[in-house]
Amino acid sequence: MRETRVYLLDGGSLELDGFHIFWNKGPAGAVRIPCYSVLVVHDEGNLVFDTGFDLAHVETVLPFERPGQSAEQTIPGQLAKVGVAPGHITHLVNSHFHFDHCGGNKHLSNAAVYCHEAEFRAADSPEPFEVLGYSDVSFAPELARRQAVAETDSALASVYAPRIEQISGDQEIFKGVRIIETPGHSAGHYSLLVELGHRRPMLFTADAAYGPASLDTLCISGFHFDPVASIRSMRRLKQIAEETGAELFFSHDASSYAGYLKAPGYYY
Amino acid sequence: MRETRVYLLDGGSLELDGFHIFWNKGPAGAVRIPCYSVLVVHDEGNLVFDTGFDLAHVETVLPFERPGQSAEQTIPGQLAKVGVAPGHITHLVNSHFHFDHCGGNKHLSNAAVYCHEAEFRAADSPEPFEVLGYSDVSFAPELARRQAVAETDSALASVYAPRIEQISGDQEIFKGVRIIETPGHSAGHYSLLVELGHRRPMLFTADAAYGPASLDTLCISGFHFDPVASIRSMRRLKQIAEETGAELFFSHDASSYAGYLKAPGYYY
Repeated sequence: MRETRVYLLDGGSLELDGFHIFWNKGPAGAVRIPCYSVLVVHDEGNLVFDTGFDLAHVETVLPFERPGQSAEQTIPGQLAKVGVAPGHITHLVNSHFHFDHCGGNKHLSNAAVYCHEAEFRAADSPEPFEVLGYSDVSFAPELARRQAVAETDSALASVYAPRIEQISGDQEIFKGVRIIETPGHSAGHYSLLVELGHRRPMLFTADAAYGPASLDTLCISGFHFDPVASIRSMRRLKQIAEETGAELFFSHDASSYAGYLKAPGYYY
Repeated sequence: MRETRVYLLDGGSLELDGFHIFWNKGPAGAVRIPCYSVLVVHDEGNLVFDTGFDLAHVETVLPFERPGQSAEQTIPGQLAKVGVAPGHITHLVNSHFHFDHCGGNKHLSNAAVYCHEAEFRAADSPEPFEVLGYSDVSFAPELARRQAVAETDSALASVYAPRIEQISGDQEIFKGVRIIETPGHSAGHYSLLVELGHRRPMLFTADAAYGPASLDTLCISGFHFDPVASIRSMRRLKQIAEETGAELFFSHDASSYAGYLKAPGYYY
């Protein structure tokens, strides 16, 4: 039996305005934020949580977010550092389908993809204010075809046909690896809680909390679907962290991220 | 029988950031916005829709919004210009209870106050991100006492005891004077539609649409309770304007406001 390991897969960075990070508070001004994914190597399989952004997509559709991503900061590049072949990823969970969390899904063609059922619907039929967030639908060529996105009539659709499992509620994917419903930032958002043998559990908030200041002040990000639900989700994360003794890992905070161990290092 | 008249009561101005006005879009930077109320002089009574902000409140609690308001720009000052005594206002409708829409309620002590039931609850128990919005509870000393706001233990509470009618759904207040449910900006938000004898109906969006650019681009304000509902409400306003031929009057847009006729002038 293998000991569970957790790797943080660096995915480069984007630039947001301070008003995007702290809703209505800011202050204004460009802030560079990290993007990363999580690999859980577990006795029951290899799970990836989120897959970062696709550089070409962001350069084309959202160049104003000034993406920074080396070849090493892609999903294949990061998995190579860890020594895991993309084809050996068995499970893929997307916290949600914003472009900076699902851009690398297409590299994990053998993985069963898990997402919240409300999230799939939202990505299929976004509100006007969500159109850019859900602009990368390469994670689901079937959905992209429905939206008549030209690029997916090309090679991609024929080579990537993911098996997407739409779920709801908290779920235990592997023993000690749970996804926790934290809606609000998007319609069907999941956070990830991982128990390990030699340290406190790790609670990956994903975009339910960009950084510690978000949680401390209950200031959600400017990007959100339901701010009331967002507040409930933040409170839920705090409560779970207190009850389980978990350490919180935030999604988009440069100074927190600087202190995290990145692949090929791992938590265990 | 009197002909119905509509007066726009100037209430001064505030300063917001562009990101507050156009959610997640901005651009950043200070923007001065007008605040005004509406007086409908009608055969069935004298109705005021919204009452602007209280200067002392904003100077104390939200000085960063840099309020500008002369004595003439208060509710008593504006009513004096029109020649209506505050005590002769019979009906008061608040689109919602954000401080810049209810700050002058206390001057209309004989009016029956109409608000959406969901709005009253929200003002009584705001979400963390609404605390500043609902910071002026002088419109309901009973509610202020529950919130233990010190100032209302003073003179005000004893002299102002409004009769507040909590309603829901679209309502016809007077013949040809309707309030229209447009939730989203706040939990229970109303817009106002007034039919007149000699012109197109007037549709006051209140904060369901700060300005024409908001409506054209479906870009709601940064301040909101439920963005999905906000989009529905914007679409509803567009549809009502089309169906009734109404002219839209926006709440917080300086260039639109410059073209509106202000009291003592009136629409009829």
